[in-house]
Amino acid sequence: MAIPVLVVGCAGKMGREVIKAVHAAPDMYVIGAVDRSHLDADAGEVAGIGPIDVPITDNLEVSCAMVAQERSPGVMVDFTHPRGLYDRVRTAIAYGVRPVIGTTGIAPEQLADLAEFADKASTGCVVAPNFAIGMILLQQACLRAAEYFDHLEIIELHHDEKADAPSGTALATAQLIASTGKAFNPAKVEETELIAGARGGLVPGNIRIHSLRLPGLLAHQEVIFGGTGQSFSLRHDTTDRSAYMPGVLLAIRKVLGLKSLVYGLEKIL
Amino acid sequence: MAIPVLVVGCAGKMGREVIKAVHAAPDMYVIGAVDRSHLDADAGEVAGIGPIDVPITDNLEVSCAMVAQERSPGVMVDFTHPRGLYDRVRTAIAYGVRPVIGTTGIAPEQLADLAEFADKASTGCVVAPNFAIGMILLQQACLRAAEYFDHLEIIELHHDEKADAPSGTALATAQLIASTGKAFNPAKVEETELIAGARGGLVPGNIRIHSLRLPGLLAHQEVIFGGTGQSFSLRHDTTDRSAYMPGVLLAIRKVLGLKSLVYGLEKIL
Amino acid sequence: MAIPVLVVGCAGKMGREVIKAVHAAPDMYVIGAVDRSHLDADAGEVAGIGPIDVPITDNLEVSCAMVAQERSPGVMVDFTHPRGLYDRVRTAIAYGVRPVIGTTGIAPEQLADLAEFADKASTGCVVAPNFAIGMILLQQACLRAAEYFDHLEIIELHHDEKADAPSGTALATAQLIASTGKAFNPAKVEETELIAGARGGLVPGNIRIHSLRLPGLLAHQEVIFGGTGQSFSLRHDTTDRSAYMPGVLLAIRKVLGLKSLVYGLEKIL
Amino acid sequence: MAIPVLVVGCAGKMGREVIKAVHAAPDMYVIGAVDRSHLDADAGEVAGIGPIDVPITDNLEVSCAMVAQERSPGVMVDFTHPRGLYDRVRTAIAYGVRPVIGTTGIAPEQLADLAEFADKASTGCVVAPNFAIGMILLQQACLRAAEYFDHLEIIELHHDEKADAPSGTALATAQLIASTGKAFNPAKVEETELIAGARGGLVPGNIRIHSLRLPGLLAHQEVIFGGTGQSFSLRHDTTDRSAYMPGVLLAIRKVLGLKSLVYGLEKIL
Repeated sequence: MAIPVLVVGCAGKMGREVIKAVHAAPDMYVIGAVDRSHLDADAGEVAGIGPIDVPITDNLEVSCAMVAQERSPGVMVDFTHPRGLYDRVRTAIAYGVRPVIGTTGIAPEQLADLAEFADKASTGCVVAPNFAIGMILLQQACLRAAEYFDHLEIIELHHDEKADAPSGTALATAQLIASTGKAFNPAKVEETELIAGARGGLVPGNIRIHSLRLPGLLAHQEVIFGGTGQSFSLRHDTTDRSAYMPGVLLAIRKVLGLKSLVYGLEKIL
Repeated sequence: MAIPVLVVGCAGKMGREVIKAVHAAPDMYVIGAVDRSHLDADAGEVAGIGPIDVPITDNLEVSCAMVAQERSPGVMVDFTHPRGLYDRVRTAIAYGVRPVIGTTGIAPEQLADLAEFADKASTGCVVAPNFAIGMILLQQACLRAAEYFDHLEIIELHHDEKADAPSGTALATAQLIASTGKAFNPAKVEETELIAGARGGLVPGNIRIHSLRLPGLLAHQEVIFGGTGQSFSLRHDTTDRSAYMPGVLLAIRKVLGLKSLVYGLEKIL
Repeated sequence: MAIPVLVVGCAGKMGREVIKAVHAAPDMYVIGAVDRSHLDADAGEVAGIGPIDVPITDNLEVSCAMVAQERSPGVMVDFTHPRGLYDRVRTAIAYGVRPVIGTTGIAPEQLADLAEFADKASTGCVVAPNFAIGMILLQQACLRAAEYFDHLEIIELHHDEKADAPSGTALATAQLIASTGKAFNPAKVEETELIAGARGGLVPGNIRIHSLRLPGLLAHQEVIFGGTGQSFSLRHDTTDRSAYMPGVLLAIRKVLGLKSLVYGLEKIL
Repeated sequence: MAIPVLVVGCAGKMGREVIKAVHAAPDMYVIGAVDRSHLDADAGEVAGIGPIDVPITDNLEVSCAMVAQERSPGVMVDFTHPRGLYDRVRTAIAYGVRPVIGTTGIAPEQLADLAEFADKASTGCVVAPNFAIGMILLQQACLRAAEYFDHLEIIELHHDEKADAPSGTALATAQLIASTGKAFNPAKVEETELIAGARGGLVPGNIRIHSLRLPGLLAHQEVIFGGTGQSFSLRHDTTDRSAYMPGVLLAIRKVLGLKSLVYGLEKIL
């Protein structure tokens, strides 16, 4: 039976992609759409795929109640803001709706609260900072390569509207690799940085990240491992927001079989 | 205790690298060196690292007997020709010397014979077409990515003294991915190749390989996976023959704990 | 004084970009918009930038007459089909409107006719198969590199909705380099193509083109020159149709100073 | 008639390459070889190409006198140290021998002295910090691209034995581009560097250089230009010291036709 999906933040950039992807998937359907803007407009129209007979509402509770009336257990997808997230997850779970959360910037203590709440309710919940499967595969392959290579550096390249450097994803990649506890990049010679910053930003694990910002670029990350006589490079390019949808659909399918909160798409790959 | 290592083909390009690497490793030493050329010359001198007090001989049997007299079990490393390989392995095993074989072009039936022989003797033996750990990591990461991506192509770039295209390693990568049984690269549109060969060489698994040959290049392989809105690329560059040595040293250490023939470095990573 | 611009094919993908770009440029404005669809709709609305008070019409002659009444000489931009192009250019020139043509697939004899017509009328006209300035710079840099390097290969990568291989632009790059008359890629060894097509498609100049087609890719071209101990690679990535607009705006500004037909953006860079 | 060439620093890494390249070129020959080490040894033997009947000497003056006795005007190639360079050039010119200087680290005032000396003697002299033709072509193409693109960043990647960052060549590329006087990389958003150095080293022209150091790498430089919807990247890879030889041979041929000191290989391309 098809999975009913409630999309919170349905009028946002990611929300609209979720509406499109869920509507197009054969094993699920959009049952509700929540946003503070575009009230009463058709969620499909707002997403640019024509009417799907789902009016946008700002009442999450009523929406969850509606999902609960479907014959199959439902899923709530939330790509919005950390503010109010705890309450939204609580509401969803109270109605037996499983949350799939792509909202970023959640504080660690809030995440712990959510995990505890999902655990008590024995309800599956997926929270992930990144739904691009290719990026998760890159990170996992890096973790493996880090066992055999002692040297690596990270380059991340983004469009020039991105204010922060390095990117959260590049930092997450570095932290994951550093979590092996290995001391990377032992120096062969004493380095001199003639111009401050030339050697990039140093993060735990003694790993350097280099951030480029240029118009015409989208979102790219490259990790280069170097060893005697060889190098191994892994690169992920995101060319469109649709890149995240296979990961979101995967999470929607997998969350139904979980009994607690799972953090990171890699846990369900 | 340090591992005594016998290097067959010690005057060849790879053999000289093996002499250097084994001599430099703290947990092993060169006990013998076999070649048909440079007889009686010092193997270290021939390898360019100065004398190591190991004269080159063409008598494998005597060399194996010498290894057998050491206090620790020894290893024979062979980067030569498939011709005579079966006899060399047999001789080594007869003396309790474990073979590590990097010789390429071994016929499948010969490989089966070697496996049977090693198995009967309960003696470890490692045969691998590629000892570059980075390349093995690339291939394994590709195998994993192939679970989630349906589309990929392979580019391999080599110096212009390489006659065959595609490279054996690129072909091996394609075959490994194809072994998943998945039908890759389903077409979205009907393709027209306006110039024959533009779309590359098609190998089983519906995978295309593109081979470039240029002076100034060394040995490079890139696998590009494409999915909606994203691509994931893995690239391995070999800049020097020393790239293979960490893999050879790893095999020397691991073969001592094996009881049969193992094919492929990935099995012992 | 600002330049009045008439956009033919204004409801097409490129036409809408032209409407946006011309409207945003400080030194020009959209005076008219021609298309067979979206009649009477506002060209700005169709382009997604809100109303600009320019209704779409299918009457090119009336539109040209309107341009002729402006105080400054005007320009017609045409990104449509070769069919009818000669008549459209004739009409424009008859009203003193300078054509900037991005329509591809024009037959050589038709191009010659257009050139003759523009010449007789002493009216500037720009026809270009590619308005991406970066690609023109790549091609010009290749032409220069081809003086010093004897070896090169071309890789072009596109999304999997592109049916033809190789791409017209890659072919144009190869033809430009081949036009030097040099015999590129002299072989060092006798090559064996174990799998047909592995070495790519061979075009005049003895240049090989390798075409990749994958979802997640956009439009990319890479030219790799190889020489003893070095390689020099040039890569152009198009991530959005807006890439062509700086070239279109440049042509609009330059065509006013011309007296005949100019083919190729490189002529006015 | 073939050009007699005197190689100073013939036993050094670059000097040995020069010996090899000059000896192999059909239109020139090694007439003399100067070094402080390997005295009396054959310069060809030291370079690894077998005897060429040119003993190494430490007497530059005698060597120059010998060149002067040849029927064709000769050239002195010097890849050594800045110390004593002025005297060596003076000696060479006194004997009518044209200097081709690849020695790096020459102080600006010393360079001015050399220029004045060459000028007074009406004798050609070529001084260049980089003889890799591909790199010169890259720099020239960047200069051209900088006319049309407002945004660029530079990445340079080297082996981990290189102590200084950024590389002199990357810095030279940035300085060349900055010399256009253009203010590059106007910011679209206010940037925040969460980790110091992440955004690279800032050099005049508001250009950022990112330096990577990894084993397995050789010498690589990439310049990425970004514009709306497109990027244009130029990359040079040096895989062997032989990369510099075509540039050295070119300078040897061209210096004979000059009457003054020329700085930079680009001036004679």
